[in-house]
Amino acid sequence: MTPSGDQLEDAVVSHIEDRPISSILIIIAMQAEALPLVNKFQLTEELSMLPKGVPWVCYRGIYKNLNINLIWPGKDLSLGVDSVGTVSASLVTYASIQALKPDLIINAGTAGGFKAKGASVGDVFLASACAFHDRRIPIPVFDMYGIGLRQAFSSPNLLKELNLKVGKLSTGDSLDMSPQDEASIVANDATIKDMEGAAVAYVADLLKVPAIFVKAVTDIVDGEKPTAEEFLQNLVAVTAALDQAVTQVLDFINGKCLSQL
Amino acid sequence: MTPSGDQLEDAVVSHIEDRPISSILIIIAMQAEALPLVNKFQLTEELSMLPKGVPWVCYRGIYKNLNINLIWPGKDLSLGVDSVGTVSASLVTYASIQALKPDLIINAGTAGGFKAKGASVGDVFLASACAFHDRRIPIPVFDMYGIGLRQAFSSPNLLKELNLKVGKLSTGDSLDMSPQDEASIVANDATIKDMEGAAVAYVADLLKVPAIFVKAVTDIVDGEKPTAEEFLQNLVAVTAALDQAVTQVLDFINGKCLSQL
Repeated sequence: MTPSGDQLEDAVVSHIEDRPISSILIIIAMQAEALPLVNKFQLTEELSMLPKGVPWVCYRGIYKNLNINLIWPGKDLSLGVDSVGTVSASLVTYASIQALKPDLIINAGTAGGFKAKGASVGDVFLASACAFHDRRIPIPVFDMYGIGLRQAFSSPNLLKELNLKVGKLSTGDSLDMSPQDEASIVANDATIKDMEGAAVAYVADLLKVPAIFVKAVTDIVDGEKPTAEEFLQNLVAVTAALDQAVTQVLDFINGKCLSQL
Repeated sequence: MTPSGDQLEDAVVSHIEDRPISSILIIIAMQAEALPLVNKFQLTEELSMLPKGVPWVCYRGIYKNLNINLIWPGKDLSLGVDSVGTVSASLVTYASIQALKPDLIINAGTAGGFKAKGASVGDVFLASACAFHDRRIPIPVFDMYGIGLRQAFSSPNLLKELNLKVGKLSTGDSLDMSPQDEASIVANDATIKDMEGAAVAYVADLLKVPAIFVKAVTDIVDGEKPTAEEFLQNLVAVTAALDQAVTQVLDFINGKCLSQL
C-alpha cells in the first residue's frame, strides 16, 4: 500500500465506521454452501445486477437491519459443476463490489484443516489473514506479491462473543496438496486451507472494502483420509455448522459499526 | 457450453463476422511488455474507463482502421511489481470487456517454452488452445473444470500468413514448475507455459469474445538455465520480437472480418 492508498483506506473506513453497518456482501463458492442461507434468510433471486450470460447467482433480502447480498459464481456453463477457485471468486467479488458498494464482505465457505495446528472436522474459523500457497515467483518482491498476504478486517469483539477458532488461511486452486504447496502452507503458518479466500481478500483490498473470512472445516489435510472423499462425506453436515456460524455473525453485526466488530 | 450458450455464441460471432473487425483489446501482463507497443502505436492513456483506486493501466489509439485498446494490470499498489498471474489477468479482462465490448482480444506476452516440443528462445507462438496446470481437483468433472481447456479463436489464415509457430499454452500462477505442474503440462500437451493465458481465455469465453494468444518465448523450461534468471536476461530482447509479431497480427487483421482470420 502506498501512503496515499493508506490515507484513502483510512478515509473510507472512518466514513463508515461511525454509522451502523447496513449492506453485507456474502461471497460463497459452492451452491451447496449457499442454498441453506438462501432458505434461512428467505432471500430472493436478483437477476438484474449481474452481466448477461454468466452463471453467477445473486440473492438478496433483509435480515434485521441488514441488507444481505449473497453471491456465488454458479455452475460452470459447459460442465455443470460449481465454479470454484480463485479466478471465479475474484470475478464475482469484483463485479458485486462494483454493483453493490457493500459496507462489509463475509467470505463464507468450507476449508481443509490441519490437525497439527489444532483444527478438527466441524470447527468454524475466523481467519486472521489470507495468503496464497500456489503462486511461487522466485524473483525478489515478486515472491511477496505471489504470496499475497492480507490481514482480515480486525474483529476482536466478534471473535470473543462467538467463541470461534482463529487461524491463518492459505488459498490455492487445487483441492489436493503437493509437497510445494505444503511447504508454502507451512511458511504461511496456516491452520486452514481453501480455494478462494486470498483471492477475495485481494479484490476486497483493491477496492477498499473490509472483509472477514468464516471457514468451516470439512476435512483434515494432514489426516489419514483422502481429501476428496472426506470433503464430500462431510460437506452437508459441516455446511450446517457454517450456516449457523454465519447467522451468529450477522446477529452480532446487526446494529453495530465497523469499529465495534 | 449448453446448447443455448452455443446458439448465443454463434449468433454473436455471426453478427460480427460479416463486418470488418473494428475494436481490438490487447491484454498484457507486464509494463515492460506493454510500453513498446504504447510507443509504437502512439497510444494515449485513458483514465476514465477503469474504476478508481486500481493500478490497472489503459492506453488507446487508432492504428489503420482499428481501435486499439491496450490494458495491463499495472504495478501492485503495495509492492510496486507488475500484477502478474491469473487473478489480475481475469479482473482486467472482465472489466475491459464490460467497458469496451471489443470484437477481438489479443492476449500478448512472454512465455516459457519446452525445447522437447520444439520451442526456442525468441520464438513467437500463436496458441491453439489454453489450459491450467495448477488447478488439480481430483473429483470427477471438477477435474476437467480445473484444467479449463479452451480453444483459441481459429485463425488459420493469420497463422499461414505470418509463419508463426503454433502450440498449446498451459497456464499457472508460479514462475517455476513443480513435478505436479510438469505432469499436468505434459497432460495438457503444452509447448509453451505462461501465467495468464487460460484465465484470459476463461473470461473471454464467459463473455463470448473471440480471443487469440500471441506468446514469445523468453526461457526454456526444460533447459539448463534457471527460469527466473533466463527470463530476466531475455525479457527486453524477446519483448521486441513480441511487439513485432503483434504489429504483424494487427496489420493482417486490419480490414478483415473475424471469419477471414
